[in-house]
Amino acid sequence: MRRLLLLLPLLVVFAPTYAGDAPGALAHWPEAARTKQLALEGILQVVPNADRLRAWHDLFCAEAHPAGTPGDTNTIEKMVKAFRDMGLETYRDDMWVYLPHFESAQVAVEVGDQVFPLSLRERPLPEDPHVAESVPAAFNAYSASGQARGEVVYANYGTREDFKRLEALGISCKGKVVIARYGKNYRGFKAKFAEAAGAAGLLMYTDPADSGWGRGLPYPEGGFANESYIQRGSIKTLAYPGDPLTPGAPATKDAERLDPATVALPKIPVQPIGWAAAAKILERMDGASVPAKWQGGLPFRYRLTSRVMKVRLAVQQPRRIMRTSNVIGMIRGAKFPDQKVVIGCHLDAWTFGAGDPHAGSIVLYEMARSFADAARAGQRPDRTIVFANWGAEEFGIIGSTEWCESHHDDLLANGIAYVNLDMAAMGKNFRSAAAPLLKDAIQDAAAAVAHGEGSVLDDWTARGKGKPGFGNLGGGSDHVGFYLHLGIPSCSLGGGGSQGVSYHSAYDTVTWYRKVVGEDYAAAKMVAQVGNVLVARLANAPLLPFHPARYAVDMRAHLAALAKGKGGEALAKATTDLSARLDSFEKDARAVRSALEKAVADGTCTGESLAGANAVLLGLERAWLLPKGLPGRPWYRNAFATTDPYSGYAAWMLPLFHHAVEGDANQTMEMAAAVYSHLLKGLEQKLQLLKAAATAGN
Amino acid sequence: MRRLLLLLPLLVVFAPTYAGDAPGALAHWPEAARTKQLALEGILQVVPNADRLRAWHDLFCAEAHPAGTPGDTNTIEKMVKAFRDMGLETYRDDMWVYLPHFESAQVAVEVGDQVFPLSLRERPLPEDPHVAESVPAAFNAYSASGQARGEVVYANYGTREDFKRLEALGISCKGKVVIARYGKNYRGFKAKFAEAAGAAGLLMYTDPADSGWGRGLPYPEGGFANESYIQRGSIKTLAYPGDPLTPGAPATKDAERLDPATVALPKIPVQPIGWAAAAKILERMDGASVPAKWQGGLPFRYRLTSRVMKVRLAVQQPRRIMRTSNVIGMIRGAKFPDQKVVIGCHLDAWTFGAGDPHAGSIVLYEMARSFADAARAGQRPDRTIVFANWGAEEFGIIGSTEWCESHHDDLLANGIAYVNLDMAAMGKNFRSAAAPLLKDAIQDAAAAVAHGEGSVLDDWTARGKGKPGFGNLGGGSDHVGFYLHLGIPSCSLGGGGSQGVSYHSAYDTVTWYRKVVGEDYAAAKMVAQVGNVLVARLANAPLLPFHPARYAVDMRAHLAALAKGKGGEALAKATTDLSARLDSFEKDARAVRSALEKAVADGTCTGESLAGANAVLLGLERAWLLPKGLPGRPWYRNAFATTDPYSGYAAWMLPLFHHAVEGDANQTMEMAAAVYSHLLKGLEQKLQLLKAAATAGN
Repeated sequence: MRRLLLLLPLLVVFAPTYAGDAPGALAHWPEAARTKQLALEGILQVVPNADRLRAWHDLFCAEAHPAGTPGDTNTIEKMVKAFRDMGLETYRDDMWVYLPHFESAQVAVEVGDQVFPLSLRERPLPEDPHVAESVPAAFNAYSASGQARGEVVYANYGTREDFKRLEALGISCKGKVVIARYGKNYRGFKAKFAEAAGAAGLLMYTDPADSGWGRGLPYPEGGFANESYIQRGSIKTLAYPGDPLTPGAPATKDAERLDPATVALPKIPVQPIGWAAAAKILERMDGASVPAKWQGGLPFRYRLTSRVMKVRLAVQQPRRIMRTSNVIGMIRGAKFPDQKVVIGCHLDAWTFGAGDPHAGSIVLYEMARSFADAARAGQRPDRTIVFANWGAEEFGIIGSTEWCESHHDDLLANGIAYVNLDMAAMGKNFRSAAAPLLKDAIQDAAAAVAHGEGSVLDDWTARGKGKPGFGNLGGGSDHVGFYLHLGIPSCSLGGGGSQGVSYHSAYDTVTWYRKVVGEDYAAAKMVAQVGNVLVARLANAPLLPFHPARYAVDMRAHLAALAKGKGGEALAKATTDLSARLDSFEKDARAVRSALEKAVADGTCTGESLAGANAVLLGLERAWLLPKGLPGRPWYRNAFATTDPYSGYAAWMLPLFHHAVEGDANQTMEMAAAVYSHLLKGLEQKLQLLKAAATAGN
Repeated sequence: MRRLLLLLPLLVVFAPTYAGDAPGALAHWPEAARTKQLALEGILQVVPNADRLRAWHDLFCAEAHPAGTPGDTNTIEKMVKAFRDMGLETYRDDMWVYLPHFESAQVAVEVGDQVFPLSLRERPLPEDPHVAESVPAAFNAYSASGQARGEVVYANYGTREDFKRLEALGISCKGKVVIARYGKNYRGFKAKFAEAAGAAGLLMYTDPADSGWGRGLPYPEGGFANESYIQRGSIKTLAYPGDPLTPGAPATKDAERLDPATVALPKIPVQPIGWAAAAKILERMDGASVPAKWQGGLPFRYRLTSRVMKVRLAVQQPRRIMRTSNVIGMIRGAKFPDQKVVIGCHLDAWTFGAGDPHAGSIVLYEMARSFADAARAGQRPDRTIVFANWGAEEFGIIGSTEWCESHHDDLLANGIAYVNLDMAAMGKNFRSAAAPLLKDAIQDAAAAVAHGEGSVLDDWTARGKGKPGFGNLGGGSDHVGFYLHLGIPSCSLGGGGSQGVSYHSAYDTVTWYRKVVGEDYAAAKMVAQVGNVLVARLANAPLLPFHPARYAVDMRAHLAALAKGKGGEALAKATTDLSARLDSFEKDARAVRSALEKAVADGTCTGESLAGANAVLLGLERAWLLPKGLPGRPWYRNAFATTDPYSGYAAWMLPLFHHAVEGDANQTMEMAAAVYSHLLKGLEQKLQLLKAAATAGN
């Protein structure tokens, strides 16, 4: 209360974007609700501040804390305490998951009788006390334990296309140690393709062309990868995220578990290295010159094979069931306590985690503190807000997946939206990837936050050349369970544009962050402000701020993009009818949304009919769920979006069409078009229900 | 005669592309002419052979021979003898031109008290006897003599945009030594822009990303540039090619000459170096990191400036009037001796010249030998064929320009076509850049030569995805005087696709050539065969094989390309009428060509009317000449094509539109459109004359 009294006079300073009329997004809110919301949004904009962001950062980044280590336990305890201190309803959500435990790794080059061991740690830096004090050795989670020794094959980025190219060139990986550079796909697929090609082992390295001097000055003079930088990371590639032994079910202490021998985890040793180490291998290769575009940034021509030199690789990394936790803090909704808006960021980190994940955690904690302060000032949200720190994300999106699985029915029924903050504050250029349904609400929230002379939306729009640019939400972080499994409208919020790469390395420290992203924490504050406004509206809006017209806009764009690719002609032919229906869907959806807002403003849509409209809106995204899931991956149920099953990071939008292109499960373009036609029909019917709700009061 | 008897039976082997009917291009020829031509083309396809190509190559590449050196004199004498031995009407065409004479150069790095000199020569290679025996030091022709010493500024490729970017970044070149990498523009413009920016001196180097390990294995293991490779080359950038002191007039011994002080030759010392030398400078720079895309292939981040290090540069390169020569051999036409088809390649070389120029000279000599053999067998051409070796091309397209100037009136009246062979045989992928009027004839000639299972045209078409791809003829070689000054339809013929770069370096040896392009001389033989057929048809065709419809096709493509660039909207608006006329021009031109061919075939167009038609065809390209030339460059008179005055190598097609975009000489889009409309009208009127000729006999 004391703090609030101090802060309220400051609201005037933040008023510019609210000058004159209330923002359009709130125009249809009943007056009492709107007045209250404007006051709340004022609070939510002034609470996040640089000093607190900085303090959270120091707190969470004090030590390395991969899941299952003592650092992990320390971080979980700090987070529980921080939420409790804010007054949140807090619990530690324990889980027992099948994790790797790193014991040792060695890599060495053999030339004749000579053997050179290669370094698997970053170089300590006098400029960065964290790195000097403790540099954990690098590893790839879920590498097999074992040894490999053989001639070397260079596989470029180790994509599906790269391994096909090697095969076309007549180069066998059988029994060889493959070396591939990071980039282009999820590292787990490099390992999967290498194993499938018969490799004895795999080394992955960061090429200076991709992340080092090819991009800018290396750390510590600049922010980019230096010669000893190593990217750690998981290589698990299963048909489901989360705990490998409990697909689709929570990983409780006594859950029924799969036999690990039946789970397709990597069977070859895999190890990440830096480019100083990689150069010692690559410069000794003596086979044929690589194809165009396979050349990296090291100062010699890259070769496909070695004849004289051999490489040895040994990894000890036993897998065992280990305890880790999510940390959950809640503010219960005053009106609709069952309905949940969830905001999350993972808590585990490969090393110190200043960028990944805590550039997001610090935003999450300032958002939690904002809503806690507001609640203490009498502004409890209508719907429940859940602040979540997810455990073991780095080993395969484990904590959030298990939570989605353990809250499956409740979230299907009551999950309003999920906002992901992983690595959120990495620069001052606001960015977002989002489900279509949320895009208007995100733009509206960005319009409410000041940025330079204008708003965050103005800046975002200018960078997008007249249109705020949204990313497609695929895989790679904790929205996966919410969006792709449960059909809960999801988004990531963040900021980018800083010049540097410390990702998954021992250089991911607050020293690096403050040098590269900034001392002022302006990026984190901006994201917290936009996030606060978005979440406050999701929690309090009388009519949920979902805009179904955007489905038509986005589907048109995705179909157009697909039509340019492989199988594009067949797709264009199969989707002629579907495309034609999108125009009228868009028109109807806009009319229905307007009618609903008008009815809410006029007070003709209230009570039961408003609740009915919200129920339909809440169910819109669920309409994309396929009961049997996607071909070969039943856990992934959202037919609107999924992860690219051949590269991992990329998003596949309208994935059944992609499966048709690949011929997976005998899917044809016509079959895919029939499914989407059916799903669109479901949405059309929901529009009719919304129309009825809008006119019920007349 | 003896050789011919031996060879005639071989014709059968080369018959496949002539199987059945005569090739379409000859279908309209009167039967006697066609029969004779087919026999001639048979001879012309069998004479060029690998042993002779190889022997010419050894003869011309025996020593380094830049213009004005003893090696140059030796080469001229060998060439005169070779033509005379073939029985060509041969003369040495002497000229007295203002050339640089290299005396000395030094480059050194200063760090505190330490001074490191940098090497200005290529490393000798045990694998290549030429390089071991004599490595001439590298220089840039027309560098000022003098010294420079200063801090260093890196200017990327030294393009106009790069120097603008430096200015925008607030980096002054005043008094500094600029270092720029080769590529993107003609090196003379790097020097011109550096001088304009106030630089004290300029170093140019070859970056490994552009020509070395970024492309493939370096020489001698592979064919690409190694660390000591240096690209020599002229930096003259005047508003006219040729001798600097006699613009527009022949450089005879007692010609009237400009005062050298009034000619805009470089005023700062300029020196080329290799990347091992460049690295010693670049790695010691300590200023700000370069913008994206400015990074080259050396293993550190490039910087814009140096503070601690300084570079010294000293060049002694006096300029003086020196004698050099063209070597001309002719076979006089039996029917139209005044009319001339000219085929040329320069004779001077920066070092040994195995690629540049003699991959073209060997083709020229085999073509000359083919026509000489045919003439001895009674097949004298109807029109005169001129085989030309041009002197001093490397210093600024001097010999060919002077010859065009000294034969100005005769060539304007009687020049049928010019075929350029500079570096012609650099690989087995046939390629050509050509004036629109010649493109059909070139395709027809390529159709007449076997290549694998099909013809050269088939292969060329397949590589172009269904359409043989032509380059645009801009600057950079000896066609410039013929095409851009005199309006004589010109083309370059050649082959590419080999993996290597020895351009203007001491590694441009036959050893390099045979390793990289091949031991078999198949590329050179292919180009000689296509060239022979093309020249034979230009020399003997009853109706000149010029196809004006191609003007419309190409203009449409050039206008479309221009409409996509800067000022594209204004252009599209200004050329609406012009574009509309191109369709009917194309239709009319095709109809007229068909009618003419039919009239020739029917024998209704002969004698006077055929001579009249040929006179009109011969004058078609001249119709593009602007009496006052292009803005600021009166020597360049062809309004269809010219060199890019801001980059040098690139072609500007329909240049008045480019000048309008740049605002040169207050040229506007409307003014440019008016000129092209007028020029097109001239061509339309010529079509009417051709139509009259076609119907004269009816």
